[in-house]
Amino acid sequence: MAKINDNYLRLQGSYLFSTIGKKVREFSEQHPEADIIRLGIGDVTRPIAPTVIEALHKAVDEMGHEETFRGYAPDLGYDFLRNVISEKDFKARGCDIEPDEIFVSDGAKCDCANIQELFSTDNTIAVCDPVYPVYVDSNVMAGRTGLYDTASERYGKVIYMPCTKDNDFVPDIPKEVPDMIYLCYPNNPSGAVITKERLQEWVDYANAHDSVILYDAAYEAYISDPSIPHSIYECEGARDCAIEFRSFSKTAGFTGLRLGFTVIPKDLTTGGEKLWPLWARRHGTKYNGAPYIVQRAGEAVYSEAGRREIEEQIAYYMGNAKIIYEGLKGAGYEVYGGVNAPYIWLRTPGNMTSWEFFDQLLTQSGIVGTPGSGFGPSGEHYFRLTAFGSRENTTRAVERIVSR
Amino acid sequence: MAKINDNYLRLQGSYLFSTIGKKVREFSEQHPEADIIRLGIGDVTRPIAPTVIEALHKAVDEMGHEETFRGYAPDLGYDFLRNVISEKDFKARGCDIEPDEIFVSDGAKCDCANIQELFSTDNTIAVCDPVYPVYVDSNVMAGRTGLYDTASERYGKVIYMPCTKDNDFVPDIPKEVPDMIYLCYPNNPSGAVITKERLQEWVDYANAHDSVILYDAAYEAYISDPSIPHSIYECEGARDCAIEFRSFSKTAGFTGLRLGFTVIPKDLTTGGEKLWPLWARRHGTKYNGAPYIVQRAGEAVYSEAGRREIEEQIAYYMGNAKIIYEGLKGAGYEVYGGVNAPYIWLRTPGNMTSWEFFDQLLTQSGIVGTPGSGFGPSGEHYFRLTAFGSRENTTRAVERIVSR
Repeated sequence: MAKINDNYLRLQGSYLFSTIGKKVREFSEQHPEADIIRLGIGDVTRPIAPTVIEALHKAVDEMGHEETFRGYAPDLGYDFLRNVISEKDFKARGCDIEPDEIFVSDGAKCDCANIQELFSTDNTIAVCDPVYPVYVDSNVMAGRTGLYDTASERYGKVIYMPCTKDNDFVPDIPKEVPDMIYLCYPNNPSGAVITKERLQEWVDYANAHDSVILYDAAYEAYISDPSIPHSIYECEGARDCAIEFRSFSKTAGFTGLRLGFTVIPKDLTTGGEKLWPLWARRHGTKYNGAPYIVQRAGEAVYSEAGRREIEEQIAYYMGNAKIIYEGLKGAGYEVYGGVNAPYIWLRTPGNMTSWEFFDQLLTQSGIVGTPGSGFGPSGEHYFRLTAFGSRENTTRAVERIVSR
Repeated sequence: MAKINDNYLRLQGSYLFSTIGKKVREFSEQHPEADIIRLGIGDVTRPIAPTVIEALHKAVDEMGHEETFRGYAPDLGYDFLRNVISEKDFKARGCDIEPDEIFVSDGAKCDCANIQELFSTDNTIAVCDPVYPVYVDSNVMAGRTGLYDTASERYGKVIYMPCTKDNDFVPDIPKEVPDMIYLCYPNNPSGAVITKERLQEWVDYANAHDSVILYDAAYEAYISDPSIPHSIYECEGARDCAIEFRSFSKTAGFTGLRLGFTVIPKDLTTGGEKLWPLWARRHGTKYNGAPYIVQRAGEAVYSEAGRREIEEQIAYYMGNAKIIYEGLKGAGYEVYGGVNAPYIWLRTPGNMTSWEFFDQLLTQSGIVGTPGSGFGPSGEHYFRLTAFGSRENTTRAVERIVSR
């Protein structure tokens, strides 16, 4: 008799954003007249940039002619894309990352979720609290987290590293040494950034303890402060301990196009084994490459015109972030993030729980945000708003919140 | 200290098609003048059909305008695609499969590789021998196969079901009852098909023993004999025991566009647990949907014009299959497949090993095929050629082989 992987049964509730989607759908069905503004799931709203659209059309045409048709992509990505990533995202910032250390994929979410597969199920993981749910849930499914304790809202074998205003939302070194450390900066959900000095401390710690850092840099394009690192490889020794995830979703509005990449330095070892060949083998066996047309779209993001258009989009969203941040601050809210990241992280008023505030905001103001407690117990009494709406909706949303 | 998943170290050699690619690259570098014809990896060569190209352009334009831009796709696929699949692939054939039982993905390879994750690592798997390597390798990586025995070329805990000309390349019921049974028809690599009667026997067997059948129907579009089932759900009781994988890669030339889907009936349980919610949760947590533009391309495959163009492509490839099949048979080769499937499966001449024949064909005739032994020990002394080349190359390849 076939038996299921009962680690799946240890997952709590449904995936956060599915739950939110369901709640909003239900409210919307009951109140078809409601004018709902979505600042929740972190999906972008600006159309794909003209230069990228042009590249897509060109690649589509190539697929329609025998001489230029492309079948299976190279397992790890097309050279034209890996080369330009290596050059512009890494070498231009002084990071020694070669094209063949870049694994192109259909998005950072998949990669963040799948990377744990390379590691023993005996390894301990450390995550920030609050945290993007995918890191924890993918480890629950793999059986690496132990049982869930309802009282503490925590899995028994996970090392949670509280991120609060007291540590600027950057975790302190934990007492127990973790084998795998998930870090995400600019941070989702808190919108915080990490200084190069504090990131270097984590790199040194990981190297001292043979831990691996899984560094999610999906939001690096939103950094405006020139002193903040865009890549963990800006730190000395990071090639010996760190894997980095990047995404085109927020950088260039590719949430519906799907493109990302993962960097694994060739010489990165853990327990004496190189990780590069393991991930290459995983790509070869369980994946079949990102679509050619989407990889060409990714290449266009790095062109001069593409870069200019993308920067305009980012400036647009960061204009929204400023409106939310200053509007709420002016109305007396306690607000964080929003300067080097597209997320605004606020304390709920009157000590409401995060879900209470979610329900109030949805039913009374027609605004969808994300409850902080959905990201972990230390996110309770916090709430996330995103800067990814239209300018008009963002302005209206802030007016509605402030006028209450 | 982080430790790796040492199940990965039990994998044998590299992924078959990566090895072939490497050998061909090396030969090609040493003999830049060589005129190589590729009938190996099973990649298509015909351009994407005009109706599909048109749908792609239209969807790309939508992504470039604010009013029609699409961000994250629904977790399980867009309704427009799931509806048409349910209607045309299933209901039209009398199979009761609803749209919400269809999970759209970026390809059948990923789904075939990931599906095992829903099951306990204690489950036993049964595979045909020879077999598409992904089924076994994905289970090796998960620790479900035991150690590899070099003498027998088999993993200790896998139930291998030999498929030879004696059983028409359809496995006999094994002595030991497997928990998970992988079947693929039309078959890769042998090009064989299964009759409805023999497939019904497998469905009955699985239901009698609470086993799950993982049915790979990636090549169903190549069936020409109207008595051969296109879907396992044409068999009675299959909704209670079977998951089915489908692909647009070979049906419509999407190897470089990436689109497929998996069917999990809502009431399918194993060990008392429903599988549908587990796969839905996996999609929600570890995947982010196939690109909108590619899902629109998939929809266009089902339009009247799209269907007509696709049928022409399939007829073109099956014309190639006929040229290979009849050419080799006429030259005295022992040949199988090629009638309801795009693969021709031949005995190597003079009892050469599969890799000896691979090397001979590459170095003496400049033709790339796939060694049967790469698909499992019972594939030794066999060789796979694909019908996916151009007509011209296929004809030239057969002439070269026959004239030797």
